[in-house]
Amino acid sequence: MIIDCHGHYTTAPKALEDWRNRQIAGIKDPASMPKVSELKISDEELRESIEKNQLRLMKERGSDLTIFSPRASFMAHHIGDFQVSSTWAAICNELCYRVSQLFPDHFIPAAMLPQSPGVDPATCIPELVKCVERYGNVGINLNPDPSGGHWTSPPLTDRHWYPIYEKMVEYDIPAMVHVSTSCNACFHTTGAHYLNADTTAFMQCLTGDLFKDFPTLKFVIPHGGGAVPYHWGRFRGLAQELKKPLLKDHLLNNIFFDTCVYHQPGIDLLTQVIPVDNILFASEMIGAVRGIDPGTGHYYDDTKRYIEASTIVVGDDRHKVYEANARRVYPRLDAALKARGK
Amino acid sequence: MIIDCHGHYTTAPKALEDWRNRQIAGIKDPASMPKVSELKISDEELRESIEKNQLRLMKERGSDLTIFSPRASFMAHHIGDFQVSSTWAAICNELCYRVSQLFPDHFIPAAMLPQSPGVDPATCIPELVKCVERYGNVGINLNPDPSGGHWTSPPLTDRHWYPIYEKMVEYDIPAMVHVSTSCNACFHTTGAHYLNADTTAFMQCLTGDLFKDFPTLKFVIPHGGGAVPYHWGRFRGLAQELKKPLLKDHLLNNIFFDTCVYHQPGIDLLTQVIPVDNILFASEMIGAVRGIDPGTGHYYDDTKRYIEASTIVVGDDRHKVYEANARRVYPRLDAALKARGK
Repeated sequence: MIIDCHGHYTTAPKALEDWRNRQIAGIKDPASMPKVSELKISDEELRESIEKNQLRLMKERGSDLTIFSPRASFMAHHIGDFQVSSTWAAICNELCYRVSQLFPDHFIPAAMLPQSPGVDPATCIPELVKCVERYGNVGINLNPDPSGGHWTSPPLTDRHWYPIYEKMVEYDIPAMVHVSTSCNACFHTTGAHYLNADTTAFMQCLTGDLFKDFPTLKFVIPHGGGAVPYHWGRFRGLAQELKKPLLKDHLLNNIFFDTCVYHQPGIDLLTQVIPVDNILFASEMIGAVRGIDPGTGHYYDDTKRYIEASTIVVGDDRHKVYEANARRVYPRLDAALKARGK
Repeated sequence: MIIDCHGHYTTAPKALEDWRNRQIAGIKDPASMPKVSELKISDEELRESIEKNQLRLMKERGSDLTIFSPRASFMAHHIGDFQVSSTWAAICNELCYRVSQLFPDHFIPAAMLPQSPGVDPATCIPELVKCVERYGNVGINLNPDPSGGHWTSPPLTDRHWYPIYEKMVEYDIPAMVHVSTSCNACFHTTGAHYLNADTTAFMQCLTGDLFKDFPTLKFVIPHGGGAVPYHWGRFRGLAQELKKPLLKDHLLNNIFFDTCVYHQPGIDLLTQVIPVDNILFASEMIGAVRGIDPGTGHYYDDTKRYIEASTIVVGDDRHKVYEANARRVYPRLDAALKARGK
């Protein structure tokens, strides 16, 4: 089985975006704030949006199951207050849940949280609980910068975030550390902010001792870990300067990287320097980079091709990257699969 | 000849830091603001600080000439106002100039600018002019985020920065795009902020058309380009989505990467994906990572070893990375060397 641990519902029916735009307009003009009940998307519309897009590509490319969460760039936690984020998160999570019910063999949900800048992350717990207990979510996306590029929250090692970690540990669910749209003109969302956040999150964990407090807490750092594997020597050296243990002991029981790196040399570097047990297959299709690489004739984000062409990830290691690591990092995914005899 | 294009005066005599601390104290208490004349560092002290450190390592490792600028993390443009930055930049640039006079065969200066958050970059021109015309500087360090991790300045493609670019083009000097200390708790200075800035600067250039306005403007992006080479597929794909030309045409006549990547797989990736004409040898010794890699028994920042061990950079390509590219990107360096018959 090939599990893609990083998929977003980037192809939701247009009605979702229209409703969101009305909600955003309603922040300044409360009279025009739409009701949740005004958003109507039929199962048929959901089905079509998936069958023509993600599911089609999954079948073409040969992956089986996607851990599916709301569109990352649309989380936009910086917009409005907690109430706005809360309503929006509930809507987006329900849609991913419905997709998972319509295509139970191909999609299993991960939740966005109703984060809001300056608001206690504990306020996210009810949505998280609902998503795990009622919707069968197997993970969450945690935004280390709900301000959208102004980085006004404390580092992930700060006790500020502990309420979420306590719940994650209780449920044994990992968080993908994933920012959303940048509203800082310096940072292009998918070309700078995403990668910077990956690097930043890793370095926050490196300087801190978070995993002493939460030995079973797990983070998936997307986009191949930002700049981290490319600068693995730098990070090993910085850990040394900071008198931290070796990275494999300090961080690699808790931090995992996905394979959303869109060319062969990048995947080769990732798999060369990061232990195979810490690498989870992912594509983030249909996402930031949707085109075809003129150098290969294939989609940039068809990351399975890079794994297939790898001379580093072979034999049982390939099974780890494709399936076994995901089952281990997402125990509720494993349990759900086993319950279905898989 | 082996030219290291990225060296900072990280080992300046303690008197410099003491003076800076008094200057910082003087921001709140003007009565205690020190005079420039109160900083006294003899040639003997300068000589010792270099001979025991950078020059010793250059001889051990086998590099000949370092493009030498003030300590990056000490630029701290976010501290105080323009006057504070201006005085501080003048002091630091003068020290690097004196080092270059004491060791003309081994050091040639590049200037820090007296940037200050919210202040027109045109205010930096007098210091820049002095450094080029009187001190023989061959390049500058340009901080895209003088706020120190809050990213409050416009992107590098904004006309805000054009006064500096006009002067750079006039003098035919490149800028190394280099941030300073992060005062944002989210960003570790050398483990996150530096790498993020590298990635951010590249993506700003990718989204813009700066080099249409300044076809001869040149940026060196340090630390191996942050996350860029590792995600070269992503950046090629993003350029495609944004209807930009191929990166080699859009950016690679103007953007260059150094080799401050502290392990063999990273250097191998860099040299595999980035054209050799765009790679300049550098180590940033004695900098962020000063330790010895237990995996190799050698200093992490002894980047010459990675080039020597490379099976990708061989023959004439090695000469390009070590010398010819630096002479091309820093024409005033080339002229200075030729004037000495080199």
